[in-house]
Amino acid sequence: MAKELNTNEEALRELAATVTSPDPVALERAWARLDSLTKPPRSLGKLEEIAARLAQIQRTDRPSAKPAAIVTMAGDHGVVAQGVSAWPSEVTMQMVANIAAGGAAVNQLAKSVGAEVVVVDVGTAGDTSVMPGVVQAKVRPGTADMSVEPAMTREEAAAAVLAGAGIAGELAARGVRVIGTGEMGIGNTTPASALTSALTGAPVAEVVGRGTGVGDEALRRKIQVIERALALHAPDVADPLGVLAAVGGLEIAGMAGVVLGGAAAGVAVVADGFISTVAALVAVRICPAAWDYVFASHRSLEPGHRAALAALGREPFIELDMRLGEGTGSAVALGIMDGACAVMSGMATFAEAGVSDRVD
Amino acid sequence: MAKELNTNEEALRELAATVTSPDPVALERAWARLDSLTKPPRSLGKLEEIAARLAQIQRTDRPSAKPAAIVTMAGDHGVVAQGVSAWPSEVTMQMVANIAAGGAAVNQLAKSVGAEVVVVDVGTAGDTSVMPGVVQAKVRPGTADMSVEPAMTREEAAAAVLAGAGIAGELAARGVRVIGTGEMGIGNTTPASALTSALTGAPVAEVVGRGTGVGDEALRRKIQVIERALALHAPDVADPLGVLAAVGGLEIAGMAGVVLGGAAAGVAVVADGFISTVAALVAVRICPAAWDYVFASHRSLEPGHRAALAALGREPFIELDMRLGEGTGSAVALGIMDGACAVMSGMATFAEAGVSDRVD
Repeated sequence: MAKELNTNEEALRELAATVTSPDPVALERAWARLDSLTKPPRSLGKLEEIAARLAQIQRTDRPSAKPAAIVTMAGDHGVVAQGVSAWPSEVTMQMVANIAAGGAAVNQLAKSVGAEVVVVDVGTAGDTSVMPGVVQAKVRPGTADMSVEPAMTREEAAAAVLAGAGIAGELAARGVRVIGTGEMGIGNTTPASALTSALTGAPVAEVVGRGTGVGDEALRRKIQVIERALALHAPDVADPLGVLAAVGGLEIAGMAGVVLGGAAAGVAVVADGFISTVAALVAVRICPAAWDYVFASHRSLEPGHRAALAALGREPFIELDMRLGEGTGSAVALGIMDGACAVMSGMATFAEAGVSDRVD
Repeated sequence: MAKELNTNEEALRELAATVTSPDPVALERAWARLDSLTKPPRSLGKLEEIAARLAQIQRTDRPSAKPAAIVTMAGDHGVVAQGVSAWPSEVTMQMVANIAAGGAAVNQLAKSVGAEVVVVDVGTAGDTSVMPGVVQAKVRPGTADMSVEPAMTREEAAAAVLAGAGIAGELAARGVRVIGTGEMGIGNTTPASALTSALTGAPVAEVVGRGTGVGDEALRRKIQVIERALALHAPDVADPLGVLAAVGGLEIAGMAGVVLGGAAAGVAVVADGFISTVAALVAVRICPAAWDYVFASHRSLEPGHRAALAALGREPFIELDMRLGEGTGSAVALGIMDGACAVMSGMATFAEAGVSDRVD
């Protein structure tokens, strides 16, 4: 039975259709250059893999991870009414203001690696239009409580994805080479856990963690709330947009859009922690070709992150026991990706440096 | 039975006696500030631990990882005559020239994080004095073959340690806040493995790896050569300088000196990979108070690194499957340490940003 398409969903399908996998020959050329540089072959491990993939995506053997930007998507969650978070919803707005003013962790980590931070209100419950620097892209003022009704409509979910894709496209048009994703949304480990369970089949209890710090009782409540929501909506894994609408979040949809928009523009996109990785997973389920553009950054302490990464099929390269979000893991990753590009673009070859090759 | 002290060894003891543990109250103050910043407490994981330790070492609640320098110590190894390396000894000199000219991996990674590279000839077999930018601190032109005689005398080992300490002291006097260690020395996973076995008691076969790429036969040879050397010298674990002299290396001694000199000057020092971590272990065995100043960077693929890190008691925070040395892991770590300091020094507090605290 064919679904009736609304305008946003149709636009999303058109966007996804424009994403193409990068050239495999470019990857071979990248490895040939990396192996010609003055180091034992592959001795820089994952740094070389990062450089090779960026070279392939950028169709060059002198890749660059600069300029870089972090897009921090903000949204609120109706499900917070069920007591699933240790923090009140108003903190979403307060933290959006803090990020816009440069006072949050993501700002400092981004500054340390020379990346800009773009904070986007794709669905906070309040009014951020008075805050200078907050990109206004609100689809609706927070999701509905998924435990009693769908978090949003399909059309709203698609609109939030398109908003994120549009921002990624604008950044790419301005010359940004790598985009990190990030989020701010009190309560959003609940939709992230629900999406992970729905998209991977993992039991809810295995993918739910303490988020930014709930106690034992709230943790049990969180599991029950998610199980109730999944039972109520019975989301179809073959319909990722439907899953996103039923138990997702606006900022998660927005980040999925950043992945799709980045991939469509031929730009690498970095998944931050748990919530951001789930967004990348949603994006790849909507558009499998986007996978080639996705980099994982760190492994968060949230138990669902492991399941989401496994389903995404990407290995993180940072183990700092972070569990903050905002794009903080993306920022650390951008620094390492810059180092990887510096190696590939700046090192001397054996021939250039007159260094002898191995004896065996 | 008291050992007779020569001048270098006496100077080394005097240096070690000047190292003092940082103030525990400064660490408490650091955590108090970190917990006041706009993030769930401890949600930046190891980044916060790094920042807290640097704050303690620097006696400030606004720590900095800049300016940073990487000291790459170079030396040759007589034991290469036994066929333990995939690369000829001449590559040490060629790579010293490459590092001095800015063409090596460490140069590019250091540039990416804004660190300078200081390359030091503490014991190459050849003449580097004609290479611009190579610091001349040669104690002897390569070690002797440890499988037939001690790698060097106690006096030479102490001299190499003092050379490294002197360079660290000069960097600290110029205002450098964090020093990364690194090395270049064809064949140096052999002395590093021998030292690890001697200092930790781990069986040789468990701590020997393929270095920068030996095959199966050379790997077996490497194990036999190390076992022969340890049987010949029977180094005493209670005499770390003696162990270093018997089965160590000049660049390893030099890096141990960087750790001691950095600690004496109140500056944090970063261990790079396997060889560098072994040097830090030697330093801490000579001077236990130096431990507080040591940071581990990445976990190398060399099997001995795990044993050396465990004996050192430091957890690395980067897992990039690197196995190159030179200070490449230190460089990546310096970038992450800069981010950690940016967080601690630049973030807003809850009070400053008007962000609500948690509800439970």
